[in-house]
Amino acid sequence: MFEEKLDLRLPGPVQVPKEIQRAMLRSFDHPMMDYRNPAFQDVLQETTEKSKMIFQTENLVIPLTSSGASALETAIINTVGPNDTIILCVVGYFGEYLQGITDHIGCKTVRVDAEWGKIADPEDVRKALKENPEAKAVFATHCETSTSAINNIKEIAAVVKETDAIFLVDAVSSIVGTPLYMDEWGIDIVATGGQKALMLPPGLALITLSEKAWNAVNNHQCPSFYFDLKLYKKGLESGTGTPYTPNISLVCGLLEACNMIEKSGGIEAEYKRHAALRDMTRAGVRALGLDLLVDDSAASPTLTAVKLNNADEFRKMMREEFHIALGGGLGKVKNQILRLGHMGYTDAADMLKMFAAMELALKKSGYEVELGAGVSAAQRHWLENPFC
Amino acid sequence: MFEEKLDLRLPGPVQVPKEIQRAMLRSFDHPMMDYRNPAFQDVLQETTEKSKMIFQTENLVIPLTSSGASALETAIINTVGPNDTIILCVVGYFGEYLQGITDHIGCKTVRVDAEWGKIADPEDVRKALKENPEAKAVFATHCETSTSAINNIKEIAAVVKETDAIFLVDAVSSIVGTPLYMDEWGIDIVATGGQKALMLPPGLALITLSEKAWNAVNNHQCPSFYFDLKLYKKGLESGTGTPYTPNISLVCGLLEACNMIEKSGGIEAEYKRHAALRDMTRAGVRALGLDLLVDDSAASPTLTAVKLNNADEFRKMMREEFHIALGGGLGKVKNQILRLGHMGYTDAADMLKMFAAMELALKKSGYEVELGAGVSAAQRHWLENPFC
Repeated sequence: MFEEKLDLRLPGPVQVPKEIQRAMLRSFDHPMMDYRNPAFQDVLQETTEKSKMIFQTENLVIPLTSSGASALETAIINTVGPNDTIILCVVGYFGEYLQGITDHIGCKTVRVDAEWGKIADPEDVRKALKENPEAKAVFATHCETSTSAINNIKEIAAVVKETDAIFLVDAVSSIVGTPLYMDEWGIDIVATGGQKALMLPPGLALITLSEKAWNAVNNHQCPSFYFDLKLYKKGLESGTGTPYTPNISLVCGLLEACNMIEKSGGIEAEYKRHAALRDMTRAGVRALGLDLLVDDSAASPTLTAVKLNNADEFRKMMREEFHIALGGGLGKVKNQILRLGHMGYTDAADMLKMFAAMELALKKSGYEVELGAGVSAAQRHWLENPFC
Repeated sequence: MFEEKLDLRLPGPVQVPKEIQRAMLRSFDHPMMDYRNPAFQDVLQETTEKSKMIFQTENLVIPLTSSGASALETAIINTVGPNDTIILCVVGYFGEYLQGITDHIGCKTVRVDAEWGKIADPEDVRKALKENPEAKAVFATHCETSTSAINNIKEIAAVVKETDAIFLVDAVSSIVGTPLYMDEWGIDIVATGGQKALMLPPGLALITLSEKAWNAVNNHQCPSFYFDLKLYKKGLESGTGTPYTPNISLVCGLLEACNMIEKSGGIEAEYKRHAALRDMTRAGVRALGLDLLVDDSAASPTLTAVKLNNADEFRKMMREEFHIALGGGLGKVKNQILRLGHMGYTDAADMLKMFAAMELALKKSGYEVELGAGVSAAQRHWLENPFC
């Protein structure tokens, strides 16, 4: 009956706020904005300027008309070529993704692995850099979306900074929800997408580069035309815009997202809000007697992975009976975990609703669970730890 | 006062119909569609199936989350590598674009040139293929958007078909507006974007390949991860969807565009409608005493280029006083031509309004023009040549 009723407690796509919907609609309502027109160039300029806050950087932020995966590839192909060495921190499914890209190019890949659910040890990165001094870059996933673990980007950055290598970060599912201070920490490239805590529909990627990274880019022949960052820099800095047709509506949506973040207290408030949602979620999960995949010390503020046998059957019940979509396991943890998304347009009440429904669904699945236990633990946590 | 009032008589971006706006808005209104969900896979399947009509093909149609330029690059990098020979038909600014891509890859490029405003001679393509039998591909722009000339794709296809080379076509600004029969003519790859006669906001590209092209793809290592067509084929044919996050709202918009075309009489009716708009536009331009850049035999049904000194000043007046945006010249014809767009969501009355305003603007610019001459010539043409 309620075919279109669905709460998204997913690690993406996320719910798009009404404010962003309206901003996007305006952009393709009469008249469709002309991207060669000065009016759009002003919007583009304002948007890229405001987007610096998202990365805590003074560097140029470049919007790409493509989804998040392309930003990771763009980071690599603009700096590393065939037979170059790159160190990859692989702690889950999206770390493997990076290897997919470097294999396509034909790079020499050195891996710093950690078990799924754990994070990369910065000392292993130091060792890898010492053993492979020719390495041109280190690439780490910030939030590993398949496990909900947060790599220690600050410490890895400090290690890489001591070398000539550049440090690349996949911040697709961390950005806005998780502290990331590009300039302060000394990250060289941050690549991300809009369809996570930035609350946009999919189709826009963002990338930003330090001076050290631009030096690498300028000394490298990018094999791609569409993703050649030199062309974007030239266009954006000269005011002529992106070299190819931009996704106008998503640029307008991004501007609105930045405005929403600014109005609600800025990026630091977003970090605190997401951390509070994470902590109440972990309190609720524990009260239900379920196991968390990731230790507190490395837990993502944007999503939480929970161990559960036959997780996909449970997800089906949550979706069909309670109209709540939970994320499932990818790759080697398929059907073994739930991933509870709490990024972007999500508030405390949304999480309480999810717990109330989960209690019922667990009961119906034969689990011994006290009704109200998850909800009240999450409520108590929220009461005792107001996020602002 | 009327800051947001603007008629787009541009060669893109084009006006987005209300129907498509609503379809897109629905997709990111509550709930945002989940692209891992079977419901979206059904939409994707239906959309790619219906999109075959656009290309007049039975081949798989692949949506890319990126703008039109990327589809051209995708066609090339999936079939041609460094040091391979490719023949490019260059008749304007967007033909030069192709060379930009092949230079990035490091291909050996053989050019078949024609003067801007003219089209490539299929016999020159035959000669180039004879002189370069190692050529792996021939690439031609269908509608050269910078001049409004339509290359003779049917005849070039017939020439290429006799060889082992594959034939690639840039149909960005021709698709839907200009007859193109992929299967019947024997084209191997058609690459296009949604933001022209398909009436979508920018951000979606489409590509489709013949069996001959797939054989080339399967024997070639694509250097890109994001644009590796093998991965898209695998995902779309197995029902798991695109390998990377798709632009959900533009896929929903594309489905609506296909439905609109179907309901209004199908693709053949669209070809006739665009031809009628072109012909009335050319009649109007001639009645104003202005020169057309392209001969009747090669004139695009989607836009019309008109020679005019100081064209950019004239465009400014049209925009500021009459709120009508006309296209200008690119590259070597900058400021020397107007480009009048009549693709997609444009009807006869829109063109009459444009002519009425142009007459006033010409008069104010010192041209001797009889008020009403352009309008009435266009009207007469429309009356005498009903398009359906």
